[in-house]
Amino acid sequence: MSKDVIKEQMSHAPGHVVYTGSKEIKDVLIDVFDYNATFVEEETVHELSSYTKDTDEKTVTWVNVNGLSDTQALTDISHKYDLHPLVMEDVANTSQRPKLDEYPDHLFIVFKMLYHDTDGKLNTEHISLILGKSYVLLMQEYDGDVFDGIRDRIRLSKGRVRTTGADYLMYALMDAVIDHYFIIIETLSDKIEELEERIYTNPSENYSQEIQQLKKEVIQVRRSIFPLREVVNKLEKVDNHLILKKTQVFVRDLYDHTIQVIETVEVYRDTIAGLMDMNSTNIANRMNEVMKVLTIIATIFIPMTFLAGIYGMNFEHIPELQIQNGYYYFWGAMVFIFIGSIIYFKRKKWL
Amino acid sequence: MSKDVIKEQMSHAPGHVVYTGSKEIKDVLIDVFDYNATFVEEETVHELSSYTKDTDEKTVTWVNVNGLSDTQALTDISHKYDLHPLVMEDVANTSQRPKLDEYPDHLFIVFKMLYHDTDGKLNTEHISLILGKSYVLLMQEYDGDVFDGIRDRIRLSKGRVRTTGADYLMYALMDAVIDHYFIIIETLSDKIEELEERIYTNPSENYSQEIQQLKKEVIQVRRSIFPLREVVNKLEKVDNHLILKKTQVFVRDLYDHTIQVIETVEVYRDTIAGLMDMNSTNIANRMNEVMKVLTIIATIFIPMTFLAGIYGMNFEHIPELQIQNGYYYFWGAMVFIFIGSIIYFKRKKWL
Amino acid sequence: MSKDVIKEQMSHAPGHVVYTGSKEIKDVLIDVFDYNATFVEEETVHELSSYTKDTDEKTVTWVNVNGLSDTQALTDISHKYDLHPLVMEDVANTSQRPKLDEYPDHLFIVFKMLYHDTDGKLNTEHISLILGKSYVLLMQEYDGDVFDGIRDRIRLSKGRVRTTGADYLMYALMDAVIDHYFIIIETLSDKIEELEERIYTNPSENYSQEIQQLKKEVIQVRRSIFPLREVVNKLEKVDNHLILKKTQVFVRDLYDHTIQVIETVEVYRDTIAGLMDMNSTNIANRMNEVMKVLTIIATIFIPMTFLAGIYGMNFEHIPELQIQNGYYYFWGAMVFIFIGSIIYFKRKKWL
Amino acid sequence: MSKDVIKEQMSHAPGHVVYTGSKEIKDVLIDVFDYNATFVEEETVHELSSYTKDTDEKTVTWVNVNGLSDTQALTDISHKYDLHPLVMEDVANTSQRPKLDEYPDHLFIVFKMLYHDTDGKLNTEHISLILGKSYVLLMQEYDGDVFDGIRDRIRLSKGRVRTTGADYLMYALMDAVIDHYFIIIETLSDKIEELEERIYTNPSENYSQEIQQLKKEVIQVRRSIFPLREVVNKLEKVDNHLILKKTQVFVRDLYDHTIQVIETVEVYRDTIAGLMDMNSTNIANRMNEVMKVLTIIATIFIPMTFLAGIYGMNFEHIPELQIQNGYYYFWGAMVFIFIGSIIYFKRKKWL
Amino acid sequence: MSKDVIKEQMSHAPGHVVYTGSKEIKDVLIDVFDYNATFVEEETVHELSSYTKDTDEKTVTWVNVNGLSDTQALTDISHKYDLHPLVMEDVANTSQRPKLDEYPDHLFIVFKMLYHDTDGKLNTEHISLILGKSYVLLMQEYDGDVFDGIRDRIRLSKGRVRTTGADYLMYALMDAVIDHYFIIIETLSDKIEELEERIYTNPSENYSQEIQQLKKEVIQVRRSIFPLREVVNKLEKVDNHLILKKTQVFVRDLYDHTIQVIETVEVYRDTIAGLMDMNSTNIANRMNEVMKVLTIIATIFIPMTFLAGIYGMNFEHIPELQIQNGYYYFWGAMVFIFIGSIIYFKRKKWL
Repeated sequence: MSKDVIKEQMSHAPGHVVYTGSKEIKDVLIDVFDYNATFVEEETVHELSSYTKDTDEKTVTWVNVNGLSDTQALTDISHKYDLHPLVMEDVANTSQRPKLDEYPDHLFIVFKMLYHDTDGKLNTEHISLILGKSYVLLMQEYDGDVFDGIRDRIRLSKGRVRTTGADYLMYALMDAVIDHYFIIIETLSDKIEELEERIYTNPSENYSQEIQQLKKEVIQVRRSIFPLREVVNKLEKVDNHLILKKTQVFVRDLYDHTIQVIETVEVYRDTIAGLMDMNSTNIANRMNEVMKVLTIIATIFIPMTFLAGIYGMNFEHIPELQIQNGYYYFWGAMVFIFIGSIIYFKRKKWL
Repeated sequence: MSKDVIKEQMSHAPGHVVYTGSKEIKDVLIDVFDYNATFVEEETVHELSSYTKDTDEKTVTWVNVNGLSDTQALTDISHKYDLHPLVMEDVANTSQRPKLDEYPDHLFIVFKMLYHDTDGKLNTEHISLILGKSYVLLMQEYDGDVFDGIRDRIRLSKGRVRTTGADYLMYALMDAVIDHYFIIIETLSDKIEELEERIYTNPSENYSQEIQQLKKEVIQVRRSIFPLREVVNKLEKVDNHLILKKTQVFVRDLYDHTIQVIETVEVYRDTIAGLMDMNSTNIANRMNEVMKVLTIIATIFIPMTFLAGIYGMNFEHIPELQIQNGYYYFWGAMVFIFIGSIIYFKRKKWL
Repeated sequence: MSKDVIKEQMSHAPGHVVYTGSKEIKDVLIDVFDYNATFVEEETVHELSSYTKDTDEKTVTWVNVNGLSDTQALTDISHKYDLHPLVMEDVANTSQRPKLDEYPDHLFIVFKMLYHDTDGKLNTEHISLILGKSYVLLMQEYDGDVFDGIRDRIRLSKGRVRTTGADYLMYALMDAVIDHYFIIIETLSDKIEELEERIYTNPSENYSQEIQQLKKEVIQVRRSIFPLREVVNKLEKVDNHLILKKTQVFVRDLYDHTIQVIETVEVYRDTIAGLMDMNSTNIANRMNEVMKVLTIIATIFIPMTFLAGIYGMNFEHIPELQIQNGYYYFWGAMVFIFIGSIIYFKRKKWL
Repeated sequence: MSKDVIKEQMSHAPGHVVYTGSKEIKDVLIDVFDYNATFVEEETVHELSSYTKDTDEKTVTWVNVNGLSDTQALTDISHKYDLHPLVMEDVANTSQRPKLDEYPDHLFIVFKMLYHDTDGKLNTEHISLILGKSYVLLMQEYDGDVFDGIRDRIRLSKGRVRTTGADYLMYALMDAVIDHYFIIIETLSDKIEELEERIYTNPSENYSQEIQQLKKEVIQVRRSIFPLREVVNKLEKVDNHLILKKTQVFVRDLYDHTIQVIETVEVYRDTIAGLMDMNSTNIANRMNEVMKVLTIIATIFIPMTFLAGIYGMNFEHIPELQIQNGYYYFWGAMVFIFIGSIIYFKRKKWL
Repeated sequence: MSKDVIKEQMSHAPGHVVYTGSKEIKDVLIDVFDYNATFVEEETVHELSSYTKDTDEKTVTWVNVNGLSDTQALTDISHKYDLHPLVMEDVANTSQRPKLDEYPDHLFIVFKMLYHDTDGKLNTEHISLILGKSYVLLMQEYDGDVFDGIRDRIRLSKGRVRTTGADYLMYALMDAVIDHYFIIIETLSDKIEELEERIYTNPSENYSQEIQQLKKEVIQVRRSIFPLREVVNKLEKVDNHLILKKTQVFVRDLYDHTIQVIETVEVYRDTIAGLMDMNSTNIANRMNEVMKVLTIIATIFIPMTFLAGIYGMNFEHIPELQIQNGYYYFWGAMVFIFIGSIIYFKRKKWL
């Protein structure tokens, strides 16, 4: 969220709807499903006002709004469903963290969709869900989602979605999102393992930027998912006519999955910290090995150079210089010093 | 808070008002708004006693006190509104942490305004808010604040502020402060990203002082905002006729925003710790690379110097010296050793 | 769990059973024990439908399903015992974390069996236990388990298992698994001690990969066992006719053991962190010692080489060169410098 | 507390009074204040038995015992005020941590006075306070305290102390001690800032011992103050006729101040950890810079020495040696190599 | 606990008594005290069955079992006092962590005695205490304990032990053990201070193994004492006719002492971590100082050697060589370079 957007928000009274995502205004596309056990109808409209079908309590209506940039459309929806003024502010505020607000006539849930774009970059999409007596409003930033399985199940009347109420639809939608988290963390896991593999096989390189990058991705995932634990926990305990008892078993299952994702992410944090440590230790270690060998070479040759210097001196009487084969004796001494040092250092495990 | 001020405070009985901010005594400026749905009046006075307008329960009165250095004025206000003696002590104590105290007739809330001054230094301003049945007392250290939006909304009767009570005004004021926190953390975020960028592009420098500086700023922000979570949480749960049920929904929203700020600050702490690590690793790494190259150069030339020393010796019989073109052969050997070492080190990935 | 399996799971409605373990489909083997204080019968079948014996409440029936790859068989069992649809999804989902779900007619418990395979690799086996009024369903991924002691006790009517109900059998099964954890952590303890020993005796090597390996194993154990604390704690507090009061004392004992395992694992984490530190310090220290000695040698010989160079100069008048025995004096000076330096460095504790 | 003292304590039954402070037995000095709104009397005695004035409920009696080494005197006091046997054991046990014990007829509070002695060393003084219906017993190890302000207020009837009961006196005494903590933490803050300043201005020194020293002081402060949070929290919630409702507002204020001290101490811990990090990084960095420059010098001169060695060789035919001005060409080459290397290293940012 | 013992345990039904301490079977020695306010009797037997004295509720009976290796004797005791089968399993399981189990007729408490053996090694002894209506069973692994003070007090009727019930005896026994912890932590404190002293005075050595050793000792103490907090806390809150109201004041005192021990141990952990840091920093620092000095020496002499090499060259025309006193000028230059470098490095604070 840029500072300009914050300042715009601040200049308005609370409840005023300001879209905080990317500026480019796109058309809002609204997919509407209307179904019960025996009946199903599907329509796509550009304005909710143009959807005039019956939305009474005999059928479940799923209104899926794609695109949040048209704040007027959001305000219209808010009025149509008689939502609390603060709700739409949060729907349009893409940096709103996951939360659950209970209102007398509806539940308002915010959560985050995570996906890797074509460049492998991790993106976060802001999703709002409003559960009413016989409808579910789902508002998301972009087209394209993970709900096609649910759409098929509604169309083909598979599973129990057609025979149950709006609360089960809410569960199914959240379940689809949370299931998708597993894909995300699997991808993360692959990246971590791949990096770990590379650190093991080529330990002398510096991977600290890559590790930091991965760490930031884990933090991003953690930040999107962590508050969801509280949301789902609250959802499980909500004492509200909107959620039937038989649906609560499913919500408990959601909680379970959420915890599992969170725990996995925590393990990744640990693993990444371990990689960072190992990276530092490896680099330092390899570096040290190199420096040691180099220093040993220098250390052996410096005294030898000194000795060569000795016999290069111009003293008038250096007796060794007159010795027959003195030169060869000198070489012998050099070889002896060289090999002796090597053996000595090997024995001391310095080499 | 200096030790002198503490000692002055200690020499007085509890409840005695001692201003702990900067010593220079400035005039107290009091802005008063008096409004209801149909009526609004605005006045600026130097002493509250000179404000004699009706402050009955039919209108909401917002008394905004700028400047806390005149402790006598504060004591007068305290008497006029019949506040508990400890309240004004905390109003004047600028190092008081954020808190909420419930009294039978009023709520007393302390929080902190954060702003960057013209030098980019982060400043903390101590703000006290007292909510009574039909009035809000807001006391702040300096002129200039983030409430101009609210003043405009009162004047122009925008939003719901004119049609609601003092409790909504309290919410609106706190909301403005918390919204401003987002500006502060965005600025922090920019600084962190800018530093991160510089660490990535120029990894060989030592950024530890800058990182430590940033860390201190994050700690300062954290310290001002963290206790607010408890304050707003308490405010949400307060069972008091002063806060109407319909305002509590808005307070819940405040809580939400507070949590979001806190979480972001926590992520910054993490990120800064990561930068510190990366900084150390980078410096060590780059340093090591340099040292390695230098050492390799020395290691290659030391044996060569030894060999040159050999043929500088004055032994009577050094056969190589008489060899035709011996000098060129020697150079050949040197070049061979040099290139061979380079190749050897390259292969071992030491270069 | 691979991404393909996750995607398969996501394409189905919740409650659909997808086996997430290794793909190879094996026969399901079902061992059935039927017993009471005076009677015991044991049978092995391939399909539960072929087990037609009386399963009324007069006897306790223990149905032990080995192999989860045949999802049809699982679905059949689910229908026979009238289990909630989500139960079988979790039974087949081998990455499900330990949990306890309470249903009106049965308790559903997931936990993990840990064992070291023949290569010393730590494996995790997914175990599900369903406790009904007079039966226990135990479903595990592979043949072979730690329950042979219980089987013998049932056959030979040792201990109190034959004279108590299904709830005691559940306790006995869980107790066997938790007791086995002690073996696992003893093995871990041995590995840690062995590595510690090696670090003490040969401190100059780099053990960071081995330590990281051990750390991952500890994390794996921790991850399997940690959620069990909550499970057993919930089990102790469950208010359900399925668990008799006299069995609850035993459950409390389970809780105790679980805590003990967890605490031990936490100590291991600490110990491993300590080993990592010690490893780094040792390597750095030893390296430093080596470098210091080498540098001292070089430092002594470089000035000596300079002096030898001095007397190798070709100045026309270098008086020392003409001195009788000058060469020997020179050597004397060299020996003096050498020994003096050694003594000096020893005194400064640099050697 | 030395082991001898512990062993002496252990050889006695619980409730036996053993003084655990410094061994030198000093006279016990007892200051007694007896006052109500209209009356005040002050006396100093050596034994409480010699104080025979009226101690009925019409006046508040403040008995201030200086010196705990005379255990007999403590036992006498204990009997006179009918205290529980364990109370006096804790009064005399100077290593007792802060706590609040509720007895039917009195509250027993232990806390710590912190002060810097003339050498700047931080000392901890053990203070016990017993609140009865109309008396306050305050027992401290040494003469000299922070209560002179309160004494003056009693004498001169300033503030509300003379017009309120023993519970307010208790509050005033605790408030004085906690206010004094602010002096202590300000002193700590000064030390930390002074050290930080020195680290910034002279980053090449090793400050680790000073930092460790400061850290120990912070730990000492933390240890004395941390348990006070629980004490004051308990005091706020105590449901006891000894503390009047109107005094509880003041106790809440105490709690506030305690939290503020604790939070500040926590920030200091953080800051000190940061200093430690910065210290290490700075030292390593500066060291590295030095080593780099030195190594670069050596690295430039070693090849040059080699070349000089070349032309010091005694080969019969070294053509360069005969070249006219060869010597000057050689010097030219040397200067070229030297300057070239410097430029090269500068460009690579190694210098 | 070895793996063999675990496997033996697993092969038995829960409740089966397996001794997990050292294998050597020793005689069990049972000391029995029987007393009330007016009467005391003391006897030592080898089997409890041979103790046939009256154990009715008129007297308190303290049965002190030394040695747990004879599991048959334990089983006999269990039957005599009608204990729950799981109790004796925990009594004999020396690796059982401290805990409190409440049974209708008795309380079962496990805790650990810590003592340093003659070699200064820290040992842990497993102690079980069972409190019945009028008896205390105390079972410990070895002879010799810290209860002699209590025995004397019973014999000589000192303190309140003879006039109170079994619950006070239980308190006195636990108090003796917890008081002994203070000895242990004082010993630890001495060791830490001694090591700290050595690190300060001789900072160049590597203390990491000693620090790690100390850390393990602190972990061992922590592990034995930490769970005791929960035990004593539970004991304080136990709602059971076995513990009289007047004894609960003493239990609160126990809790206090336990917390104090735990807090001290936590501070030690912190201190040891600080020592580890200081150790690393010191070593690195000292090492760096040495390396710097050595490198400076080398760096000064290498250019000088180069210059000496220059004048050792055999160019035909080196004008300086013919200069009168050229040799002395050369030496002058050398001294100038040497002293100039020293001054330069000193000024840059490199020396």
